[in-house]
Amino acid sequence: MLVTVTLNTALDITYGVPRLLPHASHRVTEVSERPGGKGLNVARVLAALGHPVTVTGFAGGATGAVVRDRLATVGGLVDALVQVAEPTRRTVAVVDATTGDTTQLNEAGPQIRPAEWAAFQGLYQELLASASAVALCGSLPPGVPVGAYAVLVRAARSAGVPVLLDTSGEPLRRGVAARPDLIKPNADELAELTGSHDPTRATRDARGRGARTVVASLGTRGMLAVTPEGRWRAVPPARVDGNPTGAGDSAVAGLLSGLVEGLSWPERLVRAVALSTATVLAPAAGEFDADAYRELLGRVAVTRESGASGAARTATP
Amino acid sequence: MLVTVTLNTALDITYGVPRLLPHASHRVTEVSERPGGKGLNVARVLAALGHPVTVTGFAGGATGAVVRDRLATVGGLVDALVQVAEPTRRTVAVVDATTGDTTQLNEAGPQIRPAEWAAFQGLYQELLASASAVALCGSLPPGVPVGAYAVLVRAARSAGVPVLLDTSGEPLRRGVAARPDLIKPNADELAELTGSHDPTRATRDARGRGARTVVASLGTRGMLAVTPEGRWRAVPPARVDGNPTGAGDSAVAGLLSGLVEGLSWPERLVRAVALSTATVLAPAAGEFDADAYRELLGRVAVTRESGASGAARTATP
Repeated sequence: MLVTVTLNTALDITYGVPRLLPHASHRVTEVSERPGGKGLNVARVLAALGHPVTVTGFAGGATGAVVRDRLATVGGLVDALVQVAEPTRRTVAVVDATTGDTTQLNEAGPQIRPAEWAAFQGLYQELLASASAVALCGSLPPGVPVGAYAVLVRAARSAGVPVLLDTSGEPLRRGVAARPDLIKPNADELAELTGSHDPTRATRDARGRGARTVVASLGTRGMLAVTPEGRWRAVPPARVDGNPTGAGDSAVAGLLSGLVEGLSWPERLVRAVALSTATVLAPAAGEFDADAYRELLGRVAVTRESGASGAARTATP
Repeated sequence: MLVTVTLNTALDITYGVPRLLPHASHRVTEVSERPGGKGLNVARVLAALGHPVTVTGFAGGATGAVVRDRLATVGGLVDALVQVAEPTRRTVAVVDATTGDTTQLNEAGPQIRPAEWAAFQGLYQELLASASAVALCGSLPPGVPVGAYAVLVRAARSAGVPVLLDTSGEPLRRGVAARPDLIKPNADELAELTGSHDPTRATRDARGRGARTVVASLGTRGMLAVTPEGRWRAVPPARVDGNPTGAGDSAVAGLLSGLVEGLSWPERLVRAVALSTATVLAPAAGEFDADAYRELLGRVAVTRESGASGAARTATP
């Protein structure tokens, strides 16, 4: 069983408006809502790939109830969220139909009480006993200690469960020091962690800080994997236009499923890039286009890079 | 028992952000939420004034449940909302801490099914049997016929219950034709109804269309009442700065409570203007400052206007 952890789950609301003008009043012409938070997105993609997955983290209030109701309709997904007193946060994405731009409003999340955090840790320990791999995803809600991911990484390693960490800022910095098996920063997160905007230098630095493997998602430049077994770069066949929301979460699902299936690094990267690209192509934010995914699997190019010199040869996945 | 009707109740959410920038991502630094929709606002003010009040209209889904939970904490307020299948709408007010501006995003509301509209009409008829007055407030949700307020006005008149209508656009136009006892348009609503931006001409026109009494709220120029007993204008003692959200609803509560208490028109207007002004002064949107209200009661100036000529004398309320 795969496990994803989403400490700061969300009810993601998307509003369509004809044109967003500050200080004006807007009639919202389209409303959609879905469970959000990176770990829930990862879990939904894993379930769609046929991997049974358990989600844990926190949910509370009327918004948390909506999130749980929606998760109950996802086949292959088990809800092991811990009920908390304060409500799950909302995020509101306002899509301007004139410009296509999205304006994002993110609530901070519920204040987690010490007893709630303790209850989560107990449950997490239980889930680790039967987990094939665990992904720790997203921001921390108020009240959860900034070193939370370091604690959870160490617990997974003690239990012998491969652990992927996908977060940012200080929680990432602290979590990396606990030696996770894999981190998947984007270019900004990697630069924030290491102080370097050069991917070669930054991924090396991130491994020096404790990450066994670093898979950096570099947008249109694809993904760069720096692993104990070597370095690979995977790029989509062409630049695609669409909504990048959730593309990184789909990549995490690709990496995690590839790990438990025992795929090679090139194969994992092909899957991650194909899923990520198929997510950008899907009309609904955070969903992936299954047909595009299958078609892209044969068209993602993977290149083996030899060290920091930049010399490369193409690998067949 | 007073009754307020809110066919399109709302969960009003207010977000504080440091600065609203289209196309950017924002961390919401303050979140508050409360039951909304004009009739619920009116009811809360009535309850605060010591008038028992029954609220009806529609509520549904997780948002409707939050609205009803909050209403249950208001003393003197009875919840007679009709449960519907689709969720109560949200409104999101984004307050920019840098400029002080508010950007409003309003969902349209749930699709009301014919059986739900029929159930409401049955309940409304029952409530009229013991109502001292009824206020019909706000927009119509999808699925409710545009002539709904005309139907509800006629039912109130048949039951001998004084009826106040506070809405806009086509629902106002149709509702006025059914001869409500009182309408309370603001300047824009009055101009939209009558085609005239001249308050004297527009209020006369609105009465010609069927409204027995027109009380126009003209912002800083106070309120103008055109009644079968004469014309009065009431103005606050000074221009006040603050949040005008809910000021019109407080005015309706003032007029409605004054009606059932048998106050004179000047007394009703003083109360309406004082409540409205005290609402602008309150820090929280839609609440009124009780101390300011009591103090303002002695300072609102009421002037009797004699016909369309503009000649006036001051009345002591």
